[in-house]
Amino acid sequence: MHIDELETPFAAVDLDKLEANIAGLQRYLDEHGIRNRPHIKTHKIPEIAHMQIEAGAVGISCQKLGEAEVMAEAGIRDILLTYNIIGEAKLQRLMSLARRTRMSVTADSEFTVRGLSAAAQGEKIELAVLVEFDCGGQRCGVQSPQEAAALTRLINASAGLRFSGLMTFPSNDQTDPFVRETREMLKGDGLEVECVSGGGTPNMWQAHTATEVTEHRAGTYVYGDRHIVKSGAMSLDDCALTVTTTVVSRPTADRAILDGGSKTFSSDLLDLDGYGTIIEYPEARMYAQSEEHGHVDLSACKDKPQIGERLTVIPNHCCVVSNLFNQIHGVRRGRVEVTWPVAARGALQ
Amino acid sequence: MHIDELETPFAAVDLDKLEANIAGLQRYLDEHGIRNRPHIKTHKIPEIAHMQIEAGAVGISCQKLGEAEVMAEAGIRDILLTYNIIGEAKLQRLMSLARRTRMSVTADSEFTVRGLSAAAQGEKIELAVLVEFDCGGQRCGVQSPQEAAALTRLINASAGLRFSGLMTFPSNDQTDPFVRETREMLKGDGLEVECVSGGGTPNMWQAHTATEVTEHRAGTYVYGDRHIVKSGAMSLDDCALTVTTTVVSRPTADRAILDGGSKTFSSDLLDLDGYGTIIEYPEARMYAQSEEHGHVDLSACKDKPQIGERLTVIPNHCCVVSNLFNQIHGVRRGRVEVTWPVAARGALQ
Repeated sequence: MHIDELETPFAAVDLDKLEANIAGLQRYLDEHGIRNRPHIKTHKIPEIAHMQIEAGAVGISCQKLGEAEVMAEAGIRDILLTYNIIGEAKLQRLMSLARRTRMSVTADSEFTVRGLSAAAQGEKIELAVLVEFDCGGQRCGVQSPQEAAALTRLINASAGLRFSGLMTFPSNDQTDPFVRETREMLKGDGLEVECVSGGGTPNMWQAHTATEVTEHRAGTYVYGDRHIVKSGAMSLDDCALTVTTTVVSRPTADRAILDGGSKTFSSDLLDLDGYGTIIEYPEARMYAQSEEHGHVDLSACKDKPQIGERLTVIPNHCCVVSNLFNQIHGVRRGRVEVTWPVAARGALQ
Repeated sequence: MHIDELETPFAAVDLDKLEANIAGLQRYLDEHGIRNRPHIKTHKIPEIAHMQIEAGAVGISCQKLGEAEVMAEAGIRDILLTYNIIGEAKLQRLMSLARRTRMSVTADSEFTVRGLSAAAQGEKIELAVLVEFDCGGQRCGVQSPQEAAALTRLINASAGLRFSGLMTFPSNDQTDPFVRETREMLKGDGLEVECVSGGGTPNMWQAHTATEVTEHRAGTYVYGDRHIVKSGAMSLDDCALTVTTTVVSRPTADRAILDGGSKTFSSDLLDLDGYGTIIEYPEARMYAQSEEHGHVDLSACKDKPQIGERLTVIPNHCCVVSNLFNQIHGVRRGRVEVTWPVAARGALQ
């Protein structure tokens, strides 16, 4: 099928670009001896996870138990779940996964560690736990090397658990000092920090500058989007994921309305101007959205699109866009080569 | 099952409030002789559409062909599709629907009308078409009564089509003058404007002040959200849809992290402060989100939630939240009475 036969709005991935993005980051991380553990929250598609593994990734990262369940079911055998798993039902699901897949999780509190230990006791395997620390991302994570060392000792002393390293997001120039100080504190306990897991796509080509980091988790790099282009880590031409829309109204000389709005592109602005870049009309500005309509200002365009014309949009944030679609079309030189269900979208937390 | 047994994050609808919201708007519109045609884009659930019809709605409104297909399949027999339907594949789907369901659509351009007419020719039924006009919403819609009259004449002269009235969103104090001027222009042609379809939830209790409006399309009123509360049309206590989350991290004295972020709540801000109101801690501020984490500032809270605690959130915009969930739980006094698949989410445009 040719891409022009698909009904709009649809999300398509250029397979040549996808493959190049996967190979490019793998090559760079290999050159620097950093293990690659891509984050699948961007694509949520088992086939793409397998492509990443085949290119050389040591395993994958997931952000939800439900994602890990889908990926384990699809044969992925090494999964880091970068999330505090809390509550009896989720802990049981985690242990069920850990029995058949190499699972590791993160924790940033005594509460999380005690829950993991209670669930893991009596299991045949020890559950691998990394301590999450905050390098300025101001999300989760212990706040100081003292806290990191204390939580490491607790994990080490907890039945059913094995301390497996440190994790942060995003990694940056605060990462090395934090890791070194923590390592120093743990020396007296005979505890080694073997794995230091860093992450992020905007900073991916600087991963080697944090010399303590042993593995890198990037997600968005497979598809690319306007946010990553603005960061300088990818070019517009590297972006593999696009959303094709149709102009459904031209109510005024300078306004076009597209058949995709906040339920297609999400409302993520990420400090960008507008909701996407229209490849055919780069001067057009996607200035507003309603749920099923994109509002475009054409006043800066010399030529202007007509009603019925198809426009190809690079979105602000590919991760939330792929989460809104039930399927993504893999396209090569205009032909639809494969249609992937976004298998892990809508999965339980 | 008790609501406390559900894994977080989950979306729940208080059935008492849902029923009261459906009955309340119906009563008001009945009192004023305005036909009620609720917009199902908010809930996308056939069972709720049937509740609205049973309460007295004349039919429903949809924003996507795919929504209309799901609703027709579920036995809804009168559907207004408030969208310019463009392209051969969509026109064929529309005609297929129109053969088995009372369908009407809107158009705001000659291009749309010509496409509808080409598809409808040779069909046994005439397709009902309303002219969409712009009352200041600045989305789709013809810009002047002159344009509205011209498009009406074109519809009237087009094989397979029947002019069925005027449609706008949202209706406001510009609606009556626009309709009257258009009506005046069409008198000489012997064309009557029978239906005038207005819409919106923030303005729903003022629907009777636009005396030309014969039917009203409100969507958000079934659930309610922070945006509607700010508009004054509903109270926080009227809001039927909530998202229950768990505190998964308390990295600092004033920061809590919830297990729901932009893939749970969307990024819609709608000029509100933060991403939701936490019922148990109304002073808490949901100041930021990552994809699976909500970032909460607790500095204004006297008591502060602990890790593992469940928090109930009223979101900014219920329509985009329900679009992110695969199912919604109907709850009455703490008991899960029904679990509805969000059947029309992810449907084709």
